[in-house]
Amino acid sequence: MRLATFQWNGQRHVGAVSTDSLSVTPLALDPQQARSGVLAVIEQGGRLSQLNLDHTKAIRLSEVHLEAPLPIPRRNIFCVGRNYHAHARELSASVFRNNHADPESWPIVFTKVPECVVGPSADVRLPAGISEQVDYESELAVVIGIGGCNISREKAMDHVFGYTIVNDVTARDVQMRHQQWDLGKSFDTFCPMGPWIVTADELDATNTRVRGWVNGELRQDGHTSDLIFDIPALIQTCSRGITLYPGDVIATGTPAGVGMGLTPPRYLKRGDVVRVEIDGIGAIENKFV
Amino acid sequence: MRLATFQWNGQRHVGAVSTDSLSVTPLALDPQQARSGVLAVIEQGGRLSQLNLDHTKAIRLSEVHLEAPLPIPRRNIFCVGRNYHAHARELSASVFRNNHADPESWPIVFTKVPECVVGPSADVRLPAGISEQVDYESELAVVIGIGGCNISREKAMDHVFGYTIVNDVTARDVQMRHQQWDLGKSFDTFCPMGPWIVTADELDATNTRVRGWVNGELRQDGHTSDLIFDIPALIQTCSRGITLYPGDVIATGTPAGVGMGLTPPRYLKRGDVVRVEIDGIGAIENKFV
Repeated sequence: MRLATFQWNGQRHVGAVSTDSLSVTPLALDPQQARSGVLAVIEQGGRLSQLNLDHTKAIRLSEVHLEAPLPIPRRNIFCVGRNYHAHARELSASVFRNNHADPESWPIVFTKVPECVVGPSADVRLPAGISEQVDYESELAVVIGIGGCNISREKAMDHVFGYTIVNDVTARDVQMRHQQWDLGKSFDTFCPMGPWIVTADELDATNTRVRGWVNGELRQDGHTSDLIFDIPALIQTCSRGITLYPGDVIATGTPAGVGMGLTPPRYLKRGDVVRVEIDGIGAIENKFV
Repeated sequence: MRLATFQWNGQRHVGAVSTDSLSVTPLALDPQQARSGVLAVIEQGGRLSQLNLDHTKAIRLSEVHLEAPLPIPRRNIFCVGRNYHAHARELSASVFRNNHADPESWPIVFTKVPECVVGPSADVRLPAGISEQVDYESELAVVIGIGGCNISREKAMDHVFGYTIVNDVTARDVQMRHQQWDLGKSFDTFCPMGPWIVTADELDATNTRVRGWVNGELRQDGHTSDLIFDIPALIQTCSRGITLYPGDVIATGTPAGVGMGLTPPRYLKRGDVVRVEIDGIGAIENKFV
């Protein structure tokens, strides 16, 4: 099932997108429940079969405005750095210059504030006067369904509700000058997310393609089978001594091909359009303004 | 005014602590408002003069159970690393070994998850089998009252609601092995906070003493006049391109004297009691179990 959060008739709704992607059927939620987007479904324990779907009420997808499936996640998003081998190499002299440890030893985990999430077609604002090095990172994001602490590798996938796409937009200069990355990753509008959450039963996330384009030029073309730390390892890591909650988001890192890794680097400028597509999920496309 | 969150008669309340610290007067809040603790007051715009205080309803402080003033902050806490000169020196070969930049150039900012906050006398759980190097960090925390983006140094103090104490408990081994610090700082129960929030009008936070004891032995004794980055600089930094919200917390960093900085290092063990006291606020005291 693909679950979307959207504006329709001046209100936020949550609905199931049809297989042909032409329509969306709203769930029977009160406005207060709908406010948290798909989290309302996740918190019901993800009993998808019990969703109150009335397909006679389907709306054409072209008539709604898609928002991020989790418009404001429940807390900062967990994000993973350096999780594809080729990306580790391309930034070895810049972002990862102080990371002398074996890249396979432990994942690098930082965060983005929840309020920087925007919808799948929303504008991203370049922070004028603050950063001259804004970059894209196309990523698969895991959405936690059932919380827990000290989740084992073996049980990890039972805790996954589904998957979505994020662009982990990054101000490289700010990321590096503060040494810890949270600020350079958290500027307002720096986390386009969507277009919906695909439930775990419908996607083999261990084996899908992650691509990113800038103004139609393919820049990133990776495959989740190349992850240094796979999804069970990331859930195990983030939940080690730290309770995870339904609706937590773990962005799994980006493939090679970011702007900073090009020679010379090519950062985003006003008017650029970045598209991130993941096979089996869909695409998000955001203009930088 | 000192505003506390507390349990009394099986319910959470928010109240004003008396000048002699012997009693607390609960505010007239409904249970839903009280759930977020002092945030309920902050979100009313901090119009303290309009608080509905009925002093005939004062309760003896000894009869209530103090909780963290913000039991679950609205999002991850912003925390500042390496913000006292002497502390920068004591960890220059360990935590800060890769930080070759001028320590005065930019603050190091990382986060702690909101759910790791516990009360001023709550137990902190040592994460058995996960870390052998749990350490304390006594810190002054700033609570934001009025949100904003791109807040200038000059206007920064207008955005401060008040101050509280946190112990930024840290698993040193985990902090360093992940390179980014958020995980090693976010274990469940790793952020004792309290005992209350002192409103900004009642404390000169630029000029107060921050002390930390382990089992009665004074380990940290710093002064906020020694901050490398002062409170206006921290608010300016965290709000640069990132909207701050009422109830956001910025922990300002710890003075010298952490366990890792001793020769040999002395980490916390089961049964240890850590007390953090800040002149003009009060003290928190937590047992490690």
